[in-house]
Amino acid sequence: MTRLTLAVDAMGGDFGPPVTVPAALQALASHSQLELLLVGYPDEIQPLLARADSSIHQRVTIIPAESVIASDAAPSGAIRHSQGSSMRIALELLKDGRASACISAGNTGALMGLATLLLRPTEGIRRPALVTVVPHIHRGHTVLLDLGANASADSTMLVQFALMGAVMAEEVLGIPAPRVALLNIGQEACKGPEHIRHAAVTLEQMDKLNYVGFLEGSELLTGKTDVLVCDGFAGNVSLKTMEGVIKTFLNLMTGTEQTTKRSWWRHLVVRSMKGRLMKRFGEIDPDQYNGASLLGLPGIVIKSHGAASERAFAVAIEHAIQAVVRNIPEKISVRLDTVLARSDIA
Amino acid sequence: MTRLTLAVDAMGGDFGPPVTVPAALQALASHSQLELLLVGYPDEIQPLLARADSSIHQRVTIIPAESVIASDAAPSGAIRHSQGSSMRIALELLKDGRASACISAGNTGALMGLATLLLRPTEGIRRPALVTVVPHIHRGHTVLLDLGANASADSTMLVQFALMGAVMAEEVLGIPAPRVALLNIGQEACKGPEHIRHAAVTLEQMDKLNYVGFLEGSELLTGKTDVLVCDGFAGNVSLKTMEGVIKTFLNLMTGTEQTTKRSWWRHLVVRSMKGRLMKRFGEIDPDQYNGASLLGLPGIVIKSHGAASERAFAVAIEHAIQAVVRNIPEKISVRLDTVLARSDIA
Repeated sequence: MTRLTLAVDAMGGDFGPPVTVPAALQALASHSQLELLLVGYPDEIQPLLARADSSIHQRVTIIPAESVIASDAAPSGAIRHSQGSSMRIALELLKDGRASACISAGNTGALMGLATLLLRPTEGIRRPALVTVVPHIHRGHTVLLDLGANASADSTMLVQFALMGAVMAEEVLGIPAPRVALLNIGQEACKGPEHIRHAAVTLEQMDKLNYVGFLEGSELLTGKTDVLVCDGFAGNVSLKTMEGVIKTFLNLMTGTEQTTKRSWWRHLVVRSMKGRLMKRFGEIDPDQYNGASLLGLPGIVIKSHGAASERAFAVAIEHAIQAVVRNIPEKISVRLDTVLARSDIA
Repeated sequence: MTRLTLAVDAMGGDFGPPVTVPAALQALASHSQLELLLVGYPDEIQPLLARADSSIHQRVTIIPAESVIASDAAPSGAIRHSQGSSMRIALELLKDGRASACISAGNTGALMGLATLLLRPTEGIRRPALVTVVPHIHRGHTVLLDLGANASADSTMLVQFALMGAVMAEEVLGIPAPRVALLNIGQEACKGPEHIRHAAVTLEQMDKLNYVGFLEGSELLTGKTDVLVCDGFAGNVSLKTMEGVIKTFLNLMTGTEQTTKRSWWRHLVVRSMKGRLMKRFGEIDPDQYNGASLLGLPGIVIKSHGAASERAFAVAIEHAIQAVVRNIPEKISVRLDTVLARSDIA
C-alpha cells in the first residue's frame, strides 16, 4: 500500500472521540502507510492520543472543528448550519483532495445531503445510495442497496442503483456478470408498485446487465442474486429485520434462562454450534461488518453505524482503505459512461 | 360453538383442490359444528371428498364456479373478469350472509380488490389491511400490518391501520391498552418520510391510543411494541425477511453437510435445541401461522399463503373460525365509532 490519507469525522456517532480515536489508533497500528486526519474538538481528541507511540502519533493530524451535527437533527436544518462542523470539514478534506476517503458515524441524512452537495453525484447518477454486502447461505455475498440514503426511489433511481450495485459485485466480490434482482412483494412480473415494474422493464432491456427478476425478502440470505436493489426504506427495513432476527437467535441459543440447567457437555455443543453460525453470519454482527459505502459520488464516503464500538469503527476505517485500493467510484463512472452511450438512464 | 358456515375458495393457491379439499376435511373433522361451502370446479372437488365419512360429508356443499383467477394475474384485469370465479363467488357468499367468513389462497391483489369492491370498507376505513401476529422473544406476540394489501399508504391510512391493529391486539392477544409503534428507518422524531412523521403526530394526539413512537426493523422480535404499523411493501419485506432468516438458521443448525460427521449425542443436542427454537418461533413457519386477516371490512376474509400445504390451509380455516368467534370486524367498527366521534381520521 502506498501512502494513504483518510479523513475521519471524530465527533460523529453516539460516542464520539472515546470510540473514534482509539479505533483510528487501531487502524494506524495495522497499516503503516496510513495517515489519518481526525476532525473534531482538539480538546477531546488530544488526550486520547496520549497512549499512542510516536510512529503512530506522527501519522495523525487533528483538524479543528467548531461544531458537531447531532445524530437526531433534521438533515435539512443540519445541512444549512453545517459550516465548521466536523462532518462537513471531513467531507471538504475529501473534496479538496487532501484525503482519499471520508468516514463518519454521524447523522445519515446529513452525511448523504452534505456529500451530495459538496461532491456532486457522478455523471449519470441522480442520487447516491448506501450499499453493503450481506453473506448468504452458499458462502458468498449479496450486494444490497439502498440502505436508507433515499427513503423513496423512482424507477430511474432503481436502475441507477442496479448499475452501481453490479459494478460493486464485480469489483468487490469478484463476480463476473453478477445477477441483479429487484426486491418486490411478489415474484411475478405483474406484482408490486408501478415504479418497480417499470424499472424491471428497463433493466431487462440492458444487454450489459444480468437482470434476473423480482425477489422477495425471504430470499435475502439464499444467494439467488448477487445484487439486490430497492429503495432506502425497504433496504433499511430488510437489513435491520435480518440483524434483529439473527441477534435474537444467537441470544436464544445461549439464553441465560437455561444456564443453570445446562450440563458441561451441552454447554460445549451450544458453544460449537454458535461458533458455526457466527462463522457464517457473524459478519452480520454490526461489530464486524460495519461500514456502508455511499455509492454514486466521485469520492469515497463510508457511513459507520451510529452505535459503533471501537472495534466496529476500526472496521469502517478498514472498509474505507479497501474502497480506496479498489477505486470503486472511478469504476462506476467508467461503467456508466459505457451504459450511457447506449441508453438514456439518467 | 354454534353452527358455523364458512366459504372456501377451493381453487385458489398453487395447488388448488388437492390441498384445499383435504384441509377442509381436516377442519370439519376437528369441529363438529362447522359447515363448509367449497367453491370451485365440482369435477375436481367431488373425487377428493370420496374418502370422507358421512358425518363429515353432509357438512360440505360444493358451490360450482366457472373460472379461477390465476395467482400471477394482474389484479385489475382479474377483477374485471372475475364474474363466476371461485374467489368472487366465495366472497359473494360472505356478502350475502350465507357464510360467516371467506378463506382463499389465491391472488392477494385480486382478493383485496374484490373484497373491497363487494363488501365495502368499514366506515372510517379507506382501505383494508392484511394483518398477522408474530411471536416475540418475551413469549408474547406483536400484531403486524399491513403485509401487502397496500403497497403504499399515506398518513391517514397508517393511522387507520394503527387503530385496527390496536383492536386486534386487545381482542386477539388480550392486551389492555396495547402499545402501538410505526415502523421507520430511525427512532428519532425527525427520521423517515414525511407521511410517516405526519402519522406519528396524529397518533400522539389520540388519547385512546397508546402510541409509543418509531421502531426499526431490528425490533420486530424484541417485544417493544404490541402493534407495529407500516405500509404493505415494508410489512411484506420485513415479514418475509424474518421468515427467510429463520428458515436459513433452522436449516443451518441441522444442515446436511454435517450429518455424517455428527455423533449421536451431538445429534440429540442439536435436535433438542432445534426443538427449543421451533417451540418459540416455529409458529413463524408458514405451515403453522398461515392465514393473514384482511382487516377493515364488515366481513371476515382470510388470506392463506399461496404455497400453503394441506396442514397450513387447515390452519387458515382454523384462523377464520377464531375470527368469527371473536367477531373482530364488529369490534373494530365500534372502536372506530368512538374515535371518529372525537377526531377526523377518515
